[in-house]
Amino acid sequence: MTVTSPKLNEHWKALISRIDQQMEVYLNLGEDCPSSHQEAMSYSLFAGGKRLRPVLVLLACEACGGNSDDAMPAACAIEMVHTYSLIHDDLPAMDDDDLRRGKPTCHIQFGEANAILAGDGLLTLAFEIISANVKPAESGLKCCFELAKSAGSTGMVAGQVADLEAEKTGISTLEDLQAIHKRKTGRLITCAVQMGGIIAGAESQTIQRLITYGEAIGLAFQITDDILDVVGDQKKMGKGVQKDAEHGKLTYPGFQGVEKSLKQAEELISQACEAVSPLGEKAAHLKSLANFILNRDH
Amino acid sequence: MTVTSPKLNEHWKALISRIDQQMEVYLNLGEDCPSSHQEAMSYSLFAGGKRLRPVLVLLACEACGGNSDDAMPAACAIEMVHTYSLIHDDLPAMDDDDLRRGKPTCHIQFGEANAILAGDGLLTLAFEIISANVKPAESGLKCCFELAKSAGSTGMVAGQVADLEAEKTGISTLEDLQAIHKRKTGRLITCAVQMGGIIAGAESQTIQRLITYGEAIGLAFQITDDILDVVGDQKKMGKGVQKDAEHGKLTYPGFQGVEKSLKQAEELISQACEAVSPLGEKAAHLKSLANFILNRDH
Repeated sequence: MTVTSPKLNEHWKALISRIDQQMEVYLNLGEDCPSSHQEAMSYSLFAGGKRLRPVLVLLACEACGGNSDDAMPAACAIEMVHTYSLIHDDLPAMDDDDLRRGKPTCHIQFGEANAILAGDGLLTLAFEIISANVKPAESGLKCCFELAKSAGSTGMVAGQVADLEAEKTGISTLEDLQAIHKRKTGRLITCAVQMGGIIAGAESQTIQRLITYGEAIGLAFQITDDILDVVGDQKKMGKGVQKDAEHGKLTYPGFQGVEKSLKQAEELISQACEAVSPLGEKAAHLKSLANFILNRDH
Repeated sequence: MTVTSPKLNEHWKALISRIDQQMEVYLNLGEDCPSSHQEAMSYSLFAGGKRLRPVLVLLACEACGGNSDDAMPAACAIEMVHTYSLIHDDLPAMDDDDLRRGKPTCHIQFGEANAILAGDGLLTLAFEIISANVKPAESGLKCCFELAKSAGSTGMVAGQVADLEAEKTGISTLEDLQAIHKRKTGRLITCAVQMGGIIAGAESQTIQRLITYGEAIGLAFQITDDILDVVGDQKKMGKGVQKDAEHGKLTYPGFQGVEKSLKQAEELISQACEAVSPLGEKAAHLKSLANFILNRDH
């Protein structure tokens, strides 16, 4: 069912390999870092995954005419922030998940204390990597700012807080659901393309186009995630499906059915593609990626 | 027993009031931040405390001829990082503490999930504040880097990991104990004075003096903390004393007795004062502060 263009598919694989290689370099922290701690961070960081956010950083940089090498530090950093959020979200006090991508979660493997600290370490390392490597200083500082704002108490962390509260009190409207997802997953995805644009030295109008693109695919990503939970294949997903319904969690298909949700996702993807159209051929991969989100089966 | 100079005492109080005021501004995050989350962060951030780290940022900036207003964002940021570390360290999976500064710890008051997220939020907000407010960009980026490096997986987080491991396996030498404290508390204290110097635009030789000062008072701070645990007054400390001995935790007095520990602290403070002496009268407060660490009773 995957209709990713063969071109993007190949490029994506090549980017993942470069990202993973560079993340290994960054995670090699020397003797001041306890080996157990490094192992826990590495375990979760290299647990597999699509590397969607770092790939978006690199593709957005390329779409703006930049060199993806320059964006590699920010790409690795955002994947570390994403991984930290998964580790902390999985904790017993939070979503209490034992499995992630088909493997025991960090706290199951290394214990709770080590998992909390692995998350803390990855979040902090993200800012160290950007501040040490993104040039010029203005771009580095802007990336630090956008990453912190997207990941923090009005962004991703706020989304997780709201999500936990909603599990207790319930969500009554689609707008509430959207407000949670926008912060919990949307903001970091948008930040990825923003950082790519910043590092390429893009004009503010172009950055705005990337933000529109990011917001649209971020929301579409969540909708298709919810749809996959209803219709997906457990093996391909690497996690239990229909978990949302079992947990009484409100989802897009739960609110408006699968068909209407799919239609909404399609509209969002078309908005995303339109937003980056003025960038011309350079944005072809970004468009293919948007279509992948719509048509993915995992 | 406090022998802080009356001059520093007054200045310190004035700085605390400015720091607290500014932190309230920064913590006013608007409607995108769930109120429960803001409350949990605020609860721990304003639980009282000496504000040692932010005061050090401001004093170091002043000692280098800078304007302490410029250093205020970095001062607030480092207190947030310190507070995040206390919240996470107190968690049941970590040190499992119910009381902090005489009040219920964050997870006792707000539950574990909210405490984890309050810590995550404060850590992230620290980088947002620095990247949004420290000028010029080069200084902002340097501060982000030093803060991340000091707080992260080769600094404070590494110290906490090593400390937890040592509780299980035991510490056999004073060097091991020192290696833990250096990372767990020393690095952030050193970072405070470094950031003050960076923001004042100090030369690298001066920054090096500040680092020597910070490392010395950081270690002295831990030694006097251990001594206070043996001889301190529970009421003044705001936490249980002799807890270390009860927990079988190895301490400086445990290794070498109170007298020898005190002598070591005295030597470190004298080294610290010597390091900043070339800054002249402007470093008077830094010297007074070093002496406060030696003579504090809480």
